[in-house]
Amino acid sequence: MKNTQTPSTMPVHKYRPYHESLGIDLTDRTWPGKRIEKAPMWCAVDLRDGNQALIDPMSPERKRIMFDLLVKMGYKQIEVGFPSASQTDYDFVRSLIEKNAIPDDVTIQVLTQSREALIERTYESIRGAKQAIVHLYNSTSILQRDVVFNEDRDGIKDIALSGARLCRAMEKNIPDTTVFYEYSPESFTGTELEYAVEVCNAVLEVFEPTPDRKVIINLPATVEMSSPNIYADSIEWMGRHLAHRENVILSLHPHNDRGTAVAAAELGYMAGADRIEGCLFGNGERTGNVDLVALGINLFTQGIDPQIDFSNLDEVRRTAEYCNQIKVHERSPWAGDLVYTAFSGSHQDAIKKGFERMASDAEQQGVHVDSLVWAVPYLPVDPQDLGRTYEAVIRVNSQSGKGGVAYLLKKDRNLDLPRRLQIEFSGVVQLKTDDEGGEITSDELWTIFQDEYLPSADVAHKWGRFELTGSRTESDFNGTLKLSVDLRDGETISRQDSVGNGPIDAFLKLMTQHEIAVELFDYVEHTLSAGGDAKAAAYVELNVNGTRLWGVGIDSDISTASLKAVVSAINRAIR
Amino acid sequence: MKNTQTPSTMPVHKYRPYHESLGIDLTDRTWPGKRIEKAPMWCAVDLRDGNQALIDPMSPERKRIMFDLLVKMGYKQIEVGFPSASQTDYDFVRSLIEKNAIPDDVTIQVLTQSREALIERTYESIRGAKQAIVHLYNSTSILQRDVVFNEDRDGIKDIALSGARLCRAMEKNIPDTTVFYEYSPESFTGTELEYAVEVCNAVLEVFEPTPDRKVIINLPATVEMSSPNIYADSIEWMGRHLAHRENVILSLHPHNDRGTAVAAAELGYMAGADRIEGCLFGNGERTGNVDLVALGINLFTQGIDPQIDFSNLDEVRRTAEYCNQIKVHERSPWAGDLVYTAFSGSHQDAIKKGFERMASDAEQQGVHVDSLVWAVPYLPVDPQDLGRTYEAVIRVNSQSGKGGVAYLLKKDRNLDLPRRLQIEFSGVVQLKTDDEGGEITSDELWTIFQDEYLPSADVAHKWGRFELTGSRTESDFNGTLKLSVDLRDGETISRQDSVGNGPIDAFLKLMTQHEIAVELFDYVEHTLSAGGDAKAAAYVELNVNGTRLWGVGIDSDISTASLKAVVSAINRAIR
Repeated sequence: MKNTQTPSTMPVHKYRPYHESLGIDLTDRTWPGKRIEKAPMWCAVDLRDGNQALIDPMSPERKRIMFDLLVKMGYKQIEVGFPSASQTDYDFVRSLIEKNAIPDDVTIQVLTQSREALIERTYESIRGAKQAIVHLYNSTSILQRDVVFNEDRDGIKDIALSGARLCRAMEKNIPDTTVFYEYSPESFTGTELEYAVEVCNAVLEVFEPTPDRKVIINLPATVEMSSPNIYADSIEWMGRHLAHRENVILSLHPHNDRGTAVAAAELGYMAGADRIEGCLFGNGERTGNVDLVALGINLFTQGIDPQIDFSNLDEVRRTAEYCNQIKVHERSPWAGDLVYTAFSGSHQDAIKKGFERMASDAEQQGVHVDSLVWAVPYLPVDPQDLGRTYEAVIRVNSQSGKGGVAYLLKKDRNLDLPRRLQIEFSGVVQLKTDDEGGEITSDELWTIFQDEYLPSADVAHKWGRFELTGSRTESDFNGTLKLSVDLRDGETISRQDSVGNGPIDAFLKLMTQHEIAVELFDYVEHTLSAGGDAKAAAYVELNVNGTRLWGVGIDSDISTASLKAVVSAINRAIR
Repeated sequence: MKNTQTPSTMPVHKYRPYHESLGIDLTDRTWPGKRIEKAPMWCAVDLRDGNQALIDPMSPERKRIMFDLLVKMGYKQIEVGFPSASQTDYDFVRSLIEKNAIPDDVTIQVLTQSREALIERTYESIRGAKQAIVHLYNSTSILQRDVVFNEDRDGIKDIALSGARLCRAMEKNIPDTTVFYEYSPESFTGTELEYAVEVCNAVLEVFEPTPDRKVIINLPATVEMSSPNIYADSIEWMGRHLAHRENVILSLHPHNDRGTAVAAAELGYMAGADRIEGCLFGNGERTGNVDLVALGINLFTQGIDPQIDFSNLDEVRRTAEYCNQIKVHERSPWAGDLVYTAFSGSHQDAIKKGFERMASDAEQQGVHVDSLVWAVPYLPVDPQDLGRTYEAVIRVNSQSGKGGVAYLLKKDRNLDLPRRLQIEFSGVVQLKTDDEGGEITSDELWTIFQDEYLPSADVAHKWGRFELTGSRTESDFNGTLKLSVDLRDGETISRQDSVGNGPIDAFLKLMTQHEIAVELFDYVEHTLSAGGDAKAAAYVELNVNGTRLWGVGIDSDISTASLKAVVSAINRAIR
């Protein structure tokens, strides 16, 4: 067979391989033969590099939520801002220090350009912290030296050195704070290696690294411009040529322009780096920083402790989505909605056999299944280790090619189910169709949906323990809302009052009085149609007494719809 | 500084490095020293591996749109389905052949498991095609042999061989079709290399590769279980041990479970592969197949012709989003909404200087700027080469930490601007604030927004050439809609009629009579508030006489809002 591909009309003449001018020549590289055997030192930069790439930067409240999340997960180095460039960042650093929000084993990191006024302000910002990393940078690339700074090599090196010297001089102003240093030759991936090492070594002479006070040399792929093996080559080369190597912490900071940041971090770590900077779910400038979640769980799946807690990955994801106001994609590694979902019959069959074999092996050996080595086809990790579940999704009405449960509910009922609810309901449908065989129509699907999620005509008998028959709310816009509902619990109807920051919050609190422990995971609503008579559908994902599941409510009042959705989920959990 | 990271409680004992049992030992690897210098042979599997991972599989209409897109972009090998497993796929393959939809230089590919009935049906499906690739597979991994098939090595090899032999025998049934072969040892990344090559070589003996009829050996990372260098090692090893290597097309099929599929494809290609299978924007099972867009444009940015046309990447993206019903993420390489957006002032400054330098260099040399080598900091590609534009986004009201234009419009006006409109409007705001300096309030922002997108009080003077004063629609639900509008064009108001598949379509057709050439790129709507008096906001992105921009309309009737949005965009383009 011949290759019939033909040249495109893309203006290829405008581009050259970016690495060609950098002098990366490492024929005796050793990194390809290395294996990763332990976690690197992590540094989370969500509050700086991540935050600066948001259309809506985090409010102080969101920043604090992100900081607390990172601490809770186990990150010990957290870049908390660029305080000299932003009053918001400055205030946030101060509030962390003044509110004693930084655990003793956590070190905050602050970024500063190598400019006098900025450095002074940076030291003011960290006064009172037990310890802090001052992260000094200036741009060193061929292109930026020429176009942006109009300086030669010595001029650019002087920018770094004068900044480093000023840093040392400032230490005496904050004698109660142990200051550590990080230096980044920014735009490293566009810098000739021998010049990058010249600047780094000169800066190291100023910072005087010792075993007790190692210095971080961070080599950012500010823009990812070459394949990850070239980044790894450059890291191995730098590691060989850095002075004081034993007292240097060699750090990576990959961006994802080419979609290979995770690989660049892994290969660069194999090439001798000690430390990796990144963001949860790959937030950050343009295509993002390297994804710390992918890196950490990649280690975990090889039996290497990431030293970070990913056991409730959905909570991590929800918090990050709230702070960043950017959704994690359905196919994002380890965390996306579709990652543990099998659609193909042969995959589902193999997975089923894998689970069965593990169960029978455990039984034969008289041990718990969690003591066995994980071995299920198509699932490289046990989803439960991350707080997730495996889902098999079947197709209904596949012959039409308009196959999905979700499609039919959207087309015929205007219901736009969230992705995880689609998956849950597909499982419900599968149980019904396994019983009855064959395909089902859209009307049959709607009957199954109503029976499962919505009150049927014979409410008391079929629907479950709780039913809402009325509700009133009262708010004076101070952040609290009074809710009063008419609630049937079994045979008894009564009026009950509660207070919360919104109707769902108030109602969940009320349910605890009925001995229902409920935690809210997700909440989505939409109108069913445009126009004045619009009804709304609300979807809630709850943990009810330890079971995680969805509820659905439909009403012309969006607030009522959401309360009905909560009742739907609770009734499903306890019926 | 000490590393204060501590062990997590994650159940690390359940996992082992996946590669340890595969016998990948290649100390004399050569791939790390190789450089990529030309495009591989591409095979797009969106219609098979991509489609099978959708909750809503593509309808026949959507499949055809995807097929035509792939052909238009330049893909010459397209896997069009698994016809023996799905009647929909079978019918689609037949329709392509019977409607002569396959250009002569394009080869369709059909997947089949190595089972007798499935193979027979596969050959029926391709009858009448000029040529086709029959893609035969069976699973060969240690785990699947044991758990799923309960067969030893010879038994699994026999499955492959009996299938291959049946394929050869079936050729005589379709003498008018040139059949090429592809064999995949499925779950290759869990298979011992020496066993994988034993099976592949045995299958090659049956398929009898020749220079005119090479055979594709495809080595899928069905599940990505190890870092990409290990995949590359395994590809180089296989390339050395495959029989008939000169007549074998060595093919890669990486999945993205660890987030390193793009790297695996690039390193595997350096390791000697000839061909890569993937999907646009990385659609596919779980975390997806390797992203063909990232791979192709990665080549382009190094001055290598991908032999695929990415010059209108947004159209590719919109079409893929329509067919897959999955959005491309904001940070997806080269294609996401935020990829060519700079938020940081220092980035914006450097980019500006880069553009200025290129312009002055071109002027000095007396050449067009597009004949220079691209050199702008933070932009590894000229966005215009992909049909995109660079955008600088400023922050308003940054001191509050609730900075964004988008945040304020959402909070105070309930407007939820689409991401690209946020970016466009930020540019509008930047122009105003550059004039006036300093921060702006939410009210000032709203005034700027109204002046730019919405009719102001002094409509005829400030708003522009067109204005809608009334509209009526009539539909009998057969897919066409009659629209009648009262339209002011300059000073003249008249009633005008049109027909389309919806109100926007009908109105755009009407505008062509006013010599306005309009193409619709994007359309989003939402209600401004819940409840009975809800107004709706509509946002449209149009190409108006060659200018690409957004319009906004607000009305209690969603249909009217969308027409107003079209008028908004048109007036903006021509005022």
